[in-house]
Amino acid sequence: MAIVNGCKSLFVASPIAVLLTTFTPDGHPDCFHSMAKTIIGVMGPGEQATEVDRQVAYRLGQEIAQAGWALLTGGRNAGVMDAVSQGAKSVGGLTIGILPDGDRAGMSQAIDIAILTGMGSARNNINVLSSDVVVACGMGAGTASEVALAIKAARPVLLLNVDRDSQQFFQTLSATVVAVATVDETIAQIRQLLPLERA
Amino acid sequence: MAIVNGCKSLFVASPIAVLLTTFTPDGHPDCFHSMAKTIIGVMGPGEQATEVDRQVAYRLGQEIAQAGWALLTGGRNAGVMDAVSQGAKSVGGLTIGILPDGDRAGMSQAIDIAILTGMGSARNNINVLSSDVVVACGMGAGTASEVALAIKAARPVLLLNVDRDSQQFFQTLSATVVAVATVDETIAQIRQLLPLERA
Amino acid sequence: MAIVNGCKSLFVASPIAVLLTTFTPDGHPDCFHSMAKTIIGVMGPGEQATEVDRQVAYRLGQEIAQAGWALLTGGRNAGVMDAVSQGAKSVGGLTIGILPDGDRAGMSQAIDIAILTGMGSARNNINVLSSDVVVACGMGAGTASEVALAIKAARPVLLLNVDRDSQQFFQTLSATVVAVATVDETIAQIRQLLPLERA
Amino acid sequence: MAIVNGCKSLFVASPIAVLLTTFTPDGHPDCFHSMAKTIIGVMGPGEQATEVDRQVAYRLGQEIAQAGWALLTGGRNAGVMDAVSQGAKSVGGLTIGILPDGDRAGMSQAIDIAILTGMGSARNNINVLSSDVVVACGMGAGTASEVALAIKAARPVLLLNVDRDSQQFFQTLSATVVAVATVDETIAQIRQLLPLERA
Repeated sequence: MAIVNGCKSLFVASPIAVLLTTFTPDGHPDCFHSMAKTIIGVMGPGEQATEVDRQVAYRLGQEIAQAGWALLTGGRNAGVMDAVSQGAKSVGGLTIGILPDGDRAGMSQAIDIAILTGMGSARNNINVLSSDVVVACGMGAGTASEVALAIKAARPVLLLNVDRDSQQFFQTLSATVVAVATVDETIAQIRQLLPLERA
Repeated sequence: MAIVNGCKSLFVASPIAVLLTTFTPDGHPDCFHSMAKTIIGVMGPGEQATEVDRQVAYRLGQEIAQAGWALLTGGRNAGVMDAVSQGAKSVGGLTIGILPDGDRAGMSQAIDIAILTGMGSARNNINVLSSDVVVACGMGAGTASEVALAIKAARPVLLLNVDRDSQQFFQTLSATVVAVATVDETIAQIRQLLPLERA
Repeated sequence: MAIVNGCKSLFVASPIAVLLTTFTPDGHPDCFHSMAKTIIGVMGPGEQATEVDRQVAYRLGQEIAQAGWALLTGGRNAGVMDAVSQGAKSVGGLTIGILPDGDRAGMSQAIDIAILTGMGSARNNINVLSSDVVVACGMGAGTASEVALAIKAARPVLLLNVDRDSQQFFQTLSATVVAVATVDETIAQIRQLLPLERA
Repeated sequence: MAIVNGCKSLFVASPIAVLLTTFTPDGHPDCFHSMAKTIIGVMGPGEQATEVDRQVAYRLGQEIAQAGWALLTGGRNAGVMDAVSQGAKSVGGLTIGILPDGDRAGMSQAIDIAILTGMGSARNNINVLSSDVVVACGMGAGTASEVALAIKAARPVLLLNVDRDSQQFFQTLSATVVAVATVDETIAQIRQLLPLERA
C-alpha cells in the first residue's frame, strides 16, 4: 500500500486529490488514493468587508458545502471569513480556519477545525498552499497578499466580487487568474479546475 | 451573536472548546458556543518509529476516533503519524495532517484534512498550538521538540510509550507533564483534561 | 536598566529605533536606547527582474549603504535581491538576507547575514515586519505579496520603478503608499519616514 | 561570477561558510566565496535563567565576539538571550536577534540586527537553521525545543552549563551532541566544527 515512486510527482505540482483506478497485474494500485478532502480556500476582507462582500460570501459558502468540498478561511470572527463559514455551516459543510493567533479568541463561531498558527499574517501562505483552488471575495491588503502568494505557489485563483482595477493588476501578474461574475460561475469554474475528481 | 467581551479571556489560556449554558435575561447566551471540534494531537517518530510505537499508535488512533475527537498529526506517510491516522480512519475518525511541505507528496493516505505549511519543522509549533491535548507516542528529535513547544505553550502533555529518562527530562521541565502506561489510561487522562466537555 | 513600561507602546506601532534622552529624577532613563540598526527592506522580482530593475536596484543599494542603513532582502541569488545587495556591498554596506530555504544554496554572494527560515514564501512576512521602511523595486507576484503584507503590518511602503497600474492598485489599498520616481527621491522619502533618527 | 552548479550541493547539508581556493585554468574560482558571516547561535532560558546561566552567557558572548563570529539569539530582553548579547556588545561584537513578536517591544538593548518574525516559538526553528553551531547555555522548555530542532536539522549542538540528565537525554537523541564544561572548551569545540574557516 506504499506510494509507488513514479506516482509521487503527480502530487508535487498541485495538491488536488487524485484518484487513479488503474491497477497493476498483481492487483495492487499503481498509485494511492488519498482520502484527503478537496479544499476550497476563500479569502476576503475582515473588519473592512462590505455588506455585499458578506452576502456573496455567505452564498458562496453554501454552494461550496453543497458541492461536498471542505471550506478553508483565515478563521477569524469578521467579514468574509466569518460569512462564508456561516454559509457553509448553514447547510452542514465542513469548515477549516487557519487562525493568525495562538489561541481561539477572535475565532469565527462557524469553524469546525481550528488550526492555531500563532504566526500572524505569515499564515496567509498556509491558507493558499492548503487550498486546491483559491477564491478571493472582495479585496483588501490581506486578501491581496493571499492572491499574490497563490500566484507564486501556482494555485488556481478566482476573483469574485473584485473591482476591475484589482482584476487587471492580478491578471497582469499571472495569465491564469480568472475573474468570475457570480457565485454560480465560481462553482462552475472550480469544477473545471478539479477535473479528475469529476470522473 | 457577537462574542461577549468578558468571555474572551476564557479562550486565551487554552484552546479547549467551552460551552457555557447560562443565559442572559433576554435569552441570548452569555458566551458563544464554538462549533470547533476537540483536537487531540499525537506526536511521534517518523521513519525511526519502532514496531511497538506503530502498534500503540494505531490503537490510540482508534480510541481517539471512538471518543469523537479529531486527530491531529504531522501528516507524513511514516511511523507514528501514519499509524495513528490509519487507526483513526479504521473506525471512521476525522484526521488532520499538518504537513511540513508545500505539496501532498509524502502525505499519509489516512489524512482527511491536509494543511500544507511549506515551513518544515517550524510547523511543529502549529501542531501543538492547535491541539487541546498533546500525546507523545515514542520519542525522537522531532517529537522532543513538540513536547518542549507544548510545555512552552502551556498545552497539556501526556507521554505514552516513552522511556523513563525522557519522562524524567520533560517532567523536570514542567510539573504538568504526565506519563501514561497504556492507551486506556491515555484516553482516561484526556477526559480528565477536557472537563467542561463532559457536562 | 529594564524597559520602563510606559515606554513600550512606542515600539508597538513601528520598529523604528527610538532614542529618548529624558531621564527620571532618580537618574534612570525613561526608555531604553536600542542599539538596533535601521533596516531598509528592498523587495523586487527574482528571476523575472528586468535589466532596468537590476540597475535601479544596484544604485539603490549603494545609496542605502552610504546613508548608513542596513539592507534587508529575500537573499536569493537572483534579480533585485541580488543586485541591491551587490550595490550595497560595493560601498561597504551591511546586507541581511531572509532566505526561503533551510540552507545556503541559492543565496546571493553579497549577503553578510544569512537568516535561513526554511519556510518558503511565508518568510515574506518576516521581510516586511523587520523593515523600518519597505521599498518595492519592480513588480511580480512575490513582491506584490510583500507590499500587501507591509500595508497590513502598517509599515511605510515606497514604490520605485513600479508601473502606474500597480501604483494605483496599492494606493487604493492604502493611502500611505508612496510612489517615487528616482533613487534620490527614494532616499529622501526614507529620511522623511525616519524622523527621530535624524535628531 | 555566478554560482557554479556543481558547487551548490556543498551548501545543502550545512550553512557553514565555505571558501574553496582552487581555481579553474582561466582564473575564475570553481565555487563562490560567500561573504556571509559565521553565525553562532546561543539558546538559553529567558525569565527562568539562573544567575550562573547569565554569567556564563555573558562570558560566552564576549568570546564569540572576540573570535570574530556573529552572535544569534532569540533576541528578547531576558535571561541568556540578553546576557550573551550584552557580553558580545561589550567587546564590539555583532548581535542578531530573531524576535518572536512583530514589533521591538521586549527586545534586548544589545541587539544590532532585529529580525521580527511575529511567529512566536515557531521562530525557534529559524534560530537553529541560521546557526552554523548551536550552543545551549542552561535549560528550559524553549531551549529544549531549540536543541531538538537543531538535532533534527543536523546542526552541530554544544551543551554548556546543562545538567547531566539533560545531557543524557539529548545525547540519546543524537550521538553528535557534545557536552562542554567551560566557555573556553565551547570556543575550542566551535573551532573544531568550523574547520574550513581555519585554513
